[in-house]
Amino acid sequence: MMIKGVNFIGSTPSHKSDNFLQAVNPENGTSLPEKFFIANEEEVRLAVNKAAEAFQAYKHVSGSDKARFLDAIADEVMALGDELIERAGQESGLPAGRLEGERGRTVNQIKMFADLLREGSWVDARIDTEQSDIRTMSYPLGPVVVFGASNFPFAFSTAGGDTASALAAGCPVVVKSHESHPGTNELVARAILKAAEATGMPDGVFSSLNGGPDVGKALVSHPQTCAVGFTGSYGAGTSIFQLANQREVPIPVYSEMGSINPVFLLEQKLKSEAEELASQYAGSVTLGAGQFCTKPGLIIGIEGDGLDRFTRSLSTALQEVDPACMLNEGIASTYLKKRKELLSQHGVETVWISDSTGGNLGHPTLARVSSTDFLSNRTLSEEVFGPFTLIVSCKDSDELEKVARSLQGQLTLTFMATDEELADSKSLISICREKAGRVIFNGVPTGVAVCAAMQHGGPFPATTDSKFTSVGSTAIRRFIRPIAFQSFPQTLLPEELRDGNPLGIMRLINGEYTRE
Amino acid sequence: MMIKGVNFIGSTPSHKSDNFLQAVNPENGTSLPEKFFIANEEEVRLAVNKAAEAFQAYKHVSGSDKARFLDAIADEVMALGDELIERAGQESGLPAGRLEGERGRTVNQIKMFADLLREGSWVDARIDTEQSDIRTMSYPLGPVVVFGASNFPFAFSTAGGDTASALAAGCPVVVKSHESHPGTNELVARAILKAAEATGMPDGVFSSLNGGPDVGKALVSHPQTCAVGFTGSYGAGTSIFQLANQREVPIPVYSEMGSINPVFLLEQKLKSEAEELASQYAGSVTLGAGQFCTKPGLIIGIEGDGLDRFTRSLSTALQEVDPACMLNEGIASTYLKKRKELLSQHGVETVWISDSTGGNLGHPTLARVSSTDFLSNRTLSEEVFGPFTLIVSCKDSDELEKVARSLQGQLTLTFMATDEELADSKSLISICREKAGRVIFNGVPTGVAVCAAMQHGGPFPATTDSKFTSVGSTAIRRFIRPIAFQSFPQTLLPEELRDGNPLGIMRLINGEYTRE
Repeated sequence: MMIKGVNFIGSTPSHKSDNFLQAVNPENGTSLPEKFFIANEEEVRLAVNKAAEAFQAYKHVSGSDKARFLDAIADEVMALGDELIERAGQESGLPAGRLEGERGRTVNQIKMFADLLREGSWVDARIDTEQSDIRTMSYPLGPVVVFGASNFPFAFSTAGGDTASALAAGCPVVVKSHESHPGTNELVARAILKAAEATGMPDGVFSSLNGGPDVGKALVSHPQTCAVGFTGSYGAGTSIFQLANQREVPIPVYSEMGSINPVFLLEQKLKSEAEELASQYAGSVTLGAGQFCTKPGLIIGIEGDGLDRFTRSLSTALQEVDPACMLNEGIASTYLKKRKELLSQHGVETVWISDSTGGNLGHPTLARVSSTDFLSNRTLSEEVFGPFTLIVSCKDSDELEKVARSLQGQLTLTFMATDEELADSKSLISICREKAGRVIFNGVPTGVAVCAAMQHGGPFPATTDSKFTSVGSTAIRRFIRPIAFQSFPQTLLPEELRDGNPLGIMRLINGEYTRE
Repeated sequence: MMIKGVNFIGSTPSHKSDNFLQAVNPENGTSLPEKFFIANEEEVRLAVNKAAEAFQAYKHVSGSDKARFLDAIADEVMALGDELIERAGQESGLPAGRLEGERGRTVNQIKMFADLLREGSWVDARIDTEQSDIRTMSYPLGPVVVFGASNFPFAFSTAGGDTASALAAGCPVVVKSHESHPGTNELVARAILKAAEATGMPDGVFSSLNGGPDVGKALVSHPQTCAVGFTGSYGAGTSIFQLANQREVPIPVYSEMGSINPVFLLEQKLKSEAEELASQYAGSVTLGAGQFCTKPGLIIGIEGDGLDRFTRSLSTALQEVDPACMLNEGIASTYLKKRKELLSQHGVETVWISDSTGGNLGHPTLARVSSTDFLSNRTLSEEVFGPFTLIVSCKDSDELEKVARSLQGQLTLTFMATDEELADSKSLISICREKAGRVIFNGVPTGVAVCAAMQHGGPFPATTDSKFTSVGSTAIRRFIRPIAFQSFPQTLLPEELRDGNPLGIMRLINGEYTRE
């Protein structure tokens, strides 16, 4: 498929400005040939207006028709075949195997939302008839702006979880492509538009614009924009959040801003399995060149032989991992800068570093610091995006709990422990419960299952709203609100709320959950 | 019970500043004798710190024990007997009958949350075991600050819906009493503290502070405060929202800021029932001196004989309603000021006004304006808090839809129509659905049933977060977030997530809703 470099206002290709950006292959630093025209203010306005117009039709589309649309998107994305994998590889430096896996995850996620719509109970129908006749269900908010993410060109970008959940909810989507992979975005955007056309969705249900922060700002500020999904840095995520709150009508922003995903290595576990844990964690720290929001960036244990053996083994294992190309030049240079800053902090010992530079390779790096130094220096709690992790050695379990208490909000927290140790760690678990969205026992935080129980969202600064998740089927809840109908005639009620429950969904009726 | 005028840091009476406020009886303008000491910065700090400490224990209290606590609160509030009704009457000017009704609603709401906890399914347990073992349920956020509301000294104040839902969620509460009814607050606060002690709840699970906006600001800014419940004016509600978003760690603010609750009178209905509708609406407009957040402040119809008859009848009916004392002098004078401002706008015809002043009486007032003038002047969409309503006469149904489209977010929207008319109004309903949290057919918006299906919260500026409600059992969702446990041993999982479902709650397991 020829890449055109245009924006899409609904199905209409648009190119109203001559400003353009180009993708750069991070493996060799060369620009890819295509020009991607940056959306100007008019195109932003037109895209959101068209989304608002499409919403007037799309909000009435049935669950089963939305499901057909989503399934068609999944099929069209797969139909792009190797061209998509190749383009995404050129724009992200990610290997084909990883991209194929991510594509599989992405289409499965889309299909999961299609299944959710067909099942139908997600609308949270509640009916009370004892005082007055009140019937409530969820409705879409309106046009949603989605920001493509650098680190997941498929799963958190054009047809990723934000887009899929918003479209499932009944919200049109305007995507701002990530500057690093505009070609990948265009291919996927065209697949979505093809699916929309084939399944008879209103034009404007999906639009795609190219550009940087200015385009993002304009999209968030547009009065018809009703919600925002974002995955990326703390700086960008919080600035979008603040901008949205300062609008005349504030709107919800779901920014997922990463975290350091602390891992607690407890003593007995360390004693018996230091080497195995090191090998497991070397894989998790370096997965995707350490560019996962769930990368374990902080490993906390009690000083002693076990932790020393773990440190040595992890260092050895990291040395054996081939450095991988990072997503783009900016991320690679920020990695070097943040790593340098962190390694220069008081008390930080560099356990393993490779000084070799060149390309945009992310060299695995390991450092260690005492809990005393860690607790007195907030910089050491900051994320280093890349294959870096910091071991914190604590004098004793009191100190370990102090470190736990000092933590900011996280996406995940992990305990590596024996069953007995975990049972003895109620106080630590209790502290940690307040710090994270997902708590893991004897596993690695990388690998985020797409399912109904997944919680990918934690207390600030991990995300801007810890009540929601950006992965899994409940991600749809970000883009809906309840509407109650009081004393409405049956024929004017949506099917979900009618007597007799024609859709057979689970409902809460006068206090009873029932499919009757 | 002797009113002491103190703050309560948990169960400890506190009086660290000599600054005080006094309640004023709005019926005669005289100050009530008791001094209420205003919390100073230290007391704010101590109260929230104690709440945070209590949270460490309270978060582990079982649902059935929290239910016992809530039931005890309901009992202790009732045990205050007539003294509570009398004090609230002196501080609010509200008649005893209304206050008794409000007290009944308040204790029923508390008991509803107790029932919700005993039933247990509210935790939204989700279990997936097909990819990895992930089990998720809701957990409390932490200390919640609740602002007492002037217009509901019981139902939206000390032991009102915010407090009851936060305590049910597992969050300690710090209440800032409303300056108008600090004595009522103290009586209810002591009832809550007595219930907490009797049921063995941790000290600090509830605190009560007196003061104005400075105390509120300090409470919202305290780093351990995790969420805020507020019912009141747009100005106060949005300033709390902005303050909370600008914290180092932003927190959710649920401000319910009222609305004008537009009512659409359709032609056939008007034609046949103009007089009955007028009588019904005279009651709704003047209920509680028009000081309900669901008061119908805007009535929209198509010009003609029906609307004229309705206008005349409503005017007559309003003249027959005795003016009632407003909640306080500030509210009474703001009513006069806003009413005057609105009546002086271009094209506004005063249909009925009583110029008599004196006391803090709220005289019912009726005005009328053409849709053309209404659409060109945003001031006419602003809430006049008190027994005032504005009729908008439209040339035709297109104009009526234009008015619908111009509306800001509302708590409620109402259609008075025949079944046939409503069936013919799909386009109007579709517009209105985006504007409100609750849509009513042939009823009045005042009267908010406390039940699972109630949605008392609408698009901004009605509330700061339309995804939630402040009335009904789902109000608990404001104060919780999901936490996922991955690969946890059975014995360390909360009962709600264990195999075998010992609590027998409804759960979503691998895509199936089940109590197994």
